[in-house]
Amino acid sequence: MVKIAIAGAGAMGGRVGMQIAEAGYDVTLIDYWTEHITNIQQHGLNIQTEKDTYHINIKAQLPEQIDEQYDLIIILTKAMDSEAMIEALNEANAIKETTAVLTMMNGLGHEERFAKIIPKSQIFLAVTMWTAGLRGPGQILLEGTGTIELQRADGGEDYRTEAINTIFNNAKLNSTISDNVFESIWSKATLNSVLNPLCTILDKTINQFSLYEQARQMVIPIIEEIVAVAHARGLELNFENLINKIEAAYPIESQGLHYPSMHQDLYKGRLTEIDYLNGQIVTYGKACGVATPHNEMLTHMIHQLELTYKK
Amino acid sequence: MVKIAIAGAGAMGGRVGMQIAEAGYDVTLIDYWTEHITNIQQHGLNIQTEKDTYHINIKAQLPEQIDEQYDLIIILTKAMDSEAMIEALNEANAIKETTAVLTMMNGLGHEERFAKIIPKSQIFLAVTMWTAGLRGPGQILLEGTGTIELQRADGGEDYRTEAINTIFNNAKLNSTISDNVFESIWSKATLNSVLNPLCTILDKTINQFSLYEQARQMVIPIIEEIVAVAHARGLELNFENLINKIEAAYPIESQGLHYPSMHQDLYKGRLTEIDYLNGQIVTYGKACGVATPHNEMLTHMIHQLELTYKK
Repeated sequence: MVKIAIAGAGAMGGRVGMQIAEAGYDVTLIDYWTEHITNIQQHGLNIQTEKDTYHINIKAQLPEQIDEQYDLIIILTKAMDSEAMIEALNEANAIKETTAVLTMMNGLGHEERFAKIIPKSQIFLAVTMWTAGLRGPGQILLEGTGTIELQRADGGEDYRTEAINTIFNNAKLNSTISDNVFESIWSKATLNSVLNPLCTILDKTINQFSLYEQARQMVIPIIEEIVAVAHARGLELNFENLINKIEAAYPIESQGLHYPSMHQDLYKGRLTEIDYLNGQIVTYGKACGVATPHNEMLTHMIHQLELTYKK
Repeated sequence: MVKIAIAGAGAMGGRVGMQIAEAGYDVTLIDYWTEHITNIQQHGLNIQTEKDTYHINIKAQLPEQIDEQYDLIIILTKAMDSEAMIEALNEANAIKETTAVLTMMNGLGHEERFAKIIPKSQIFLAVTMWTAGLRGPGQILLEGTGTIELQRADGGEDYRTEAINTIFNNAKLNSTISDNVFESIWSKATLNSVLNPLCTILDKTINQFSLYEQARQMVIPIIEEIVAVAHARGLELNFENLINKIEAAYPIESQGLHYPSMHQDLYKGRLTEIDYLNGQIVTYGKACGVATPHNEMLTHMIHQLELTYKK
């Protein structure tokens, strides 16, 4: 039976892990948060849905407790913790030559960072529209539905691609195999690179941000830079689709009442994922000679605010 | 005897007006703030210095009470109120053909806006390093020293330039006649266009802003845009001087502990002067084909925050 690890078992990791476990697979949740892992070990994972609350038993470990090898490792840590997690998995000998290491994290450039540690042919990329919440240690909240798209990072395909897709679909995660997962990853990253830093810096909900009459003028040049950087890297993004997707988030009936996750990270004193969004755009832009002043300014501002709020 | 009006009699207007009045000139303070004017009319202007507190009697009027013609009108309103003030003076027939209308306000482009109302040969520009505080209606606080530089807006000179300079020096305001007042105005506006919006958006003192290790990387492109716009308009600014002046404000012994005035304006729910600083740079940049993404982003962000804090 395939052995699956969820490395980074917060809200999303918990959700993906429990759905796969409920489909009958052998799943281990791995996380650095001791209280969370201890809680799951002692009481099981507490699941809250719109209808009811229940517990499921699921294996949970701290990185130093890893004692198995996995066929599939799904990385769902915060972006800045992912390399340390892969190092920990590597040191624990949890990664075999055939292991598929799949990142489903937000942001750009993960495959390049991972490729410094494991061969690129073992790296798979996924982008998801699922969301989840964390109510406290050992407690996750499930709302709404979503989809997953996945592809091997080098663009190739092997038996594992199909196998992972089957696992996800057995777990009711609505997965498809993509032939251009980068387009989806960059589209999601564009949305996050626009709304996350702007709403965080301005301390506004998505809808409040949109009420400024020149909101579109603020958004356009940020997207244009991302499209230009992507183009220089051989990836064609559709500007109109991107701005439409962003503006579709504005209404109160859509995501308007929410602060983006970066807002929560910042004001709770955590580091944000800015370096994996706008900061990565700036890095890519420098490498290929594309100017990214807007993304650079946003990156600096968030780093400035991290200094204010860090604990 | 020359008749002098101070149009906009807040902290700076109050200070300049009282110093000129104390030198023996006929000075009228004009302001839109009823409580302030009434207080000065009833009790005189209350002056607080580092050493003592005293009152001086000085004529004070609301714009609708104007009943004289002036030889010199010094505009020290908030930038956005200045045109309304000149219209009010014009309607009250307070401006003669020989009247010198001198702006000592922060920001750029005042002479162009004024020139729509009065001939450019009547417009004088001054830049000052004096500061002042307002303790409440009718109460001003005098600290520190400063200088004034002045020039006729069209670059020409006439008997009035020398006369105004003499008045200022009699009033111990350390004035000199400049042959390039625009350089000084733009230098001060650059300092304000960098530190005002950044410290306001980030809610940081000048020193706190400077503690970010990439503060210089944030500042450089904003200055570069201003230098490029000035150059396109035929004005040469020295980049090194500008950044040195900005960084000289960082230490706690310098201006480090202060929030720029825009910070106070914003969080008290007032409109800021952003459109006369970064916003004017953007407008000029568009007119002469110079890209100003950083200044544009800062302008938008401050306008976004004005929506949050406006009363």
